Amino acid sequence: MNDVAAEPTRWRLADGRDQLFFALPGRTPAPVADRRPLGERPDRQSQLRFDRQTGQWVIIAALRQDRTYKPPPDQCPLCPGPTGLTSEIPAPDYDVVVFENRFPSLSGADGAPFDLPSADGDQFLAAPGHGRCEVICFSSHHTDSFADLEPPQARLVAEAWRHRTADLMARPGIAHVFCFENRGEEIGVTLTHPHGQIYGYPYLPPRAAVMLREATAHARRTGRNLFADILSHEVADGSRIVARTELFTAFVPFAARWPVEVHIYPNRFVHNLIELTDAELDDFALIYLDVLGRFDRLYPTALPYISALHQYADTVEQREGYFHVELFSVRRSATKLKFLAGSESGMDAFISDVAPESVAQRLRGL
Amino acid sequence: MNDVAAEPTRWRLADGRDQLFFALPGRTPAPVADRRPLGERPDRQSQLRFDRQTGQWVIIAALRQDRTYKPPPDQCPLCPGPTGLTSEIPAPDYDVVVFENRFPSLSGADGAPFDLPSADGDQFLAAPGHGRCEVICFSSHHTDSFADLEPPQARLVAEAWRHRTADLMARPGIAHVFCFENRGEEIGVTLTHPHGQIYGYPYLPPRAAVMLREATAHARRTGRNLFADILSHEVADGSRIVARTELFTAFVPFAARWPVEVHIYPNRFVHNLIELTDAELDDFALIYLDVLGRFDRLYPTALPYISALHQYADTVEQREGYFHVELFSVRRSATKLKFLAGSESGMDAFISDVAPESVAQRLRGL
Repeated sequence: MNDVAAEPTRWRLADGRDQLFFALPGRTPAPVADRRPLGERPDRQSQLRFDRQTGQWVIIAALRQDRTYKPPPDQCPLCPGPTGLTSEIPAPDYDVVVFENRFPSLSGADGAPFDLPSADGDQFLAAPGHGRCEVICFSSHHTDSFADLEPPQARLVAEAWRHRTADLMARPGIAHVFCFENRGEEIGVTLTHPHGQIYGYPYLPPRAAVMLREATAHARRTGRNLFADILSHEVADGSRIVARTELFTAFVPFAARWPVEVHIYPNRFVHNLIELTDAELDDFALIYLDVLGRFDRLYPTALPYISALHQYADTVEQREGYFHVELFSVRRSATKLKFLAGSESGMDAFISDVAPESVAQRLRGL
Repeated sequence: MNDVAAEPTRWRLADGRDQLFFALPGRTPAPVADRRPLGERPDRQSQLRFDRQTGQWVIIAALRQDRTYKPPPDQCPLCPGPTGLTSEIPAPDYDVVVFENRFPSLSGADGAPFDLPSADGDQFLAAPGHGRCEVICFSSHHTDSFADLEPPQARLVAEAWRHRTADLMARPGIAHVFCFENRGEEIGVTLTHPHGQIYGYPYLPPRAAVMLREATAHARRTGRNLFADILSHEVADGSRIVARTELFTAFVPFAARWPVEVHIYPNRFVHNLIELTDAELDDFALIYLDVLGRFDRLYPTALPYISALHQYADTVEQREGYFHVELFSVRRSATKLKFLAGSESGMDAFISDVAPESVAQRLRGL
């Protein structure tokens, strides 16, 4: 489906964690030894617990309370560390780098078989927190945000996401690969260096499961793909389109849940980044930058946002899953945030304060 | 099932909204005319939109952006207003008062029949935001919180919740009645006067629907009620019990999603507050106060929390629903809040930083 991208340079941190350097054309990563006295990784695997009220797994990661919390800029663990003594990235420089999270919510997906226990019966049900949590640094520049990246750099991030998706999807016991980004202290980000995360869950997370259930029912009823139908209805209507190219469409969804919410769909049905052609991956990087740029021009200050890449495996269960990105923000005005209060947090019943059409109109005009 | 409580005193606000005064024994409400120039209620009904990705309704209430936002204490609209000119409650005093929200997300459930449109087909689907949003003031004292109420006052709140539940459940087109409380500016509360809200939704909200689906499947599989089984497992295990009386049990659930989370169950299976005996309602007020008191002793400052009363109708669809309260907080330490980041907001996959057993132990000891 796509040309083989340059393989990343593989490295290992002092406590044994994997690290991968992705480089722009013509650049060669030059990592140095990680000389920090990290010792062995503690045996701190988290626990999965099955919530019988909802039929959903919950991750209990009790030892993450110690994780790095708002370090001063000169101690940023994501800036390059040329001495191998100060940073998670022991190198004089890097383009894009991925490594296992030092405080992982899920861990151990290194090749051994893993099956979740069956949820039949009615006893308390727990399992090891099997899976993988990775950090991806989008740039070596501490002050950049994703929206500031040059297109080739954004393209390299997309390539790294694609690489990690393919690798993690193939590992035993990983049911779902989720690449995401949280940006902004307003939503709890504790490291401001531009970075995202990649989770390999051992179960299909609830929102993905709900969407697959609806898409599978829709396919049975109509013979068509749900997401493709949504996309064609949005394009035909036009009032919520934010940006559209030959290969991608960005729109505010008809029933948006967040004050700012944009979904980016490829115009062609693919399950995940792996199935995109190189031309599509190019265009994906561009439309993603375009939407983030509009986000940052909405208000005087940069918009806090969450970006969620919805990817599916080409399996019977996930066949109807259509790759798309859901970007959303809790900012509801220049000075106010939306909080998830009783209706949202207690009942998952979302109330939006703005008409999706007016948000789309504003974003189109920016 | 229970003695008939004193009927509330019915009143009407200047713009036609209903108001109900609930009084302690021996007290008689004495409302005055609401003389504010509110005019007619604007025709601002919200819209329901069906999200085909998830099969869930979303409420678009675009005109609520103007709602009251952090007024100074001397302009509190929930303190008694003896002149009828300054407050939502035109009275020299009150015990507990309920009235229709001036900025409702849902409205119009005043008797006319209402049916949600069918979600078959694949077009965009919208409907009027039919339903009811009420405000309930727990006390006339601006500085009280629910935890500070005397037991008879808390009992009166529970009686008011019971009254509103019975009234709203009987209205055409209301599928679910949800009494809840948001407490704390940290979670976006914009009026600090102790109050809660009551929603009558025209659909079963997603979290209630998920729980009923699991409970119905459990009943089919085992012949038993899911919630009763959960309760008996928690009691048998004991490690997560916070408080227990002859009639009620409070525990941290096995798969808690929030840093502080306590569920209160009646020891006997009932669907809702209406089915509680008066002795049970007495005891409910006491254990609710007990849990809130423990919440406020956890940290040097009062705990921000959401309290969600899960009530069900005694219908075929909701038969397996077991009345319980879910209380939870985003506070994860004296100085830190839990934010719903990518995993939670993007995938509904919760990650908890604390072991439920250690939270329960702390709460038990307070």
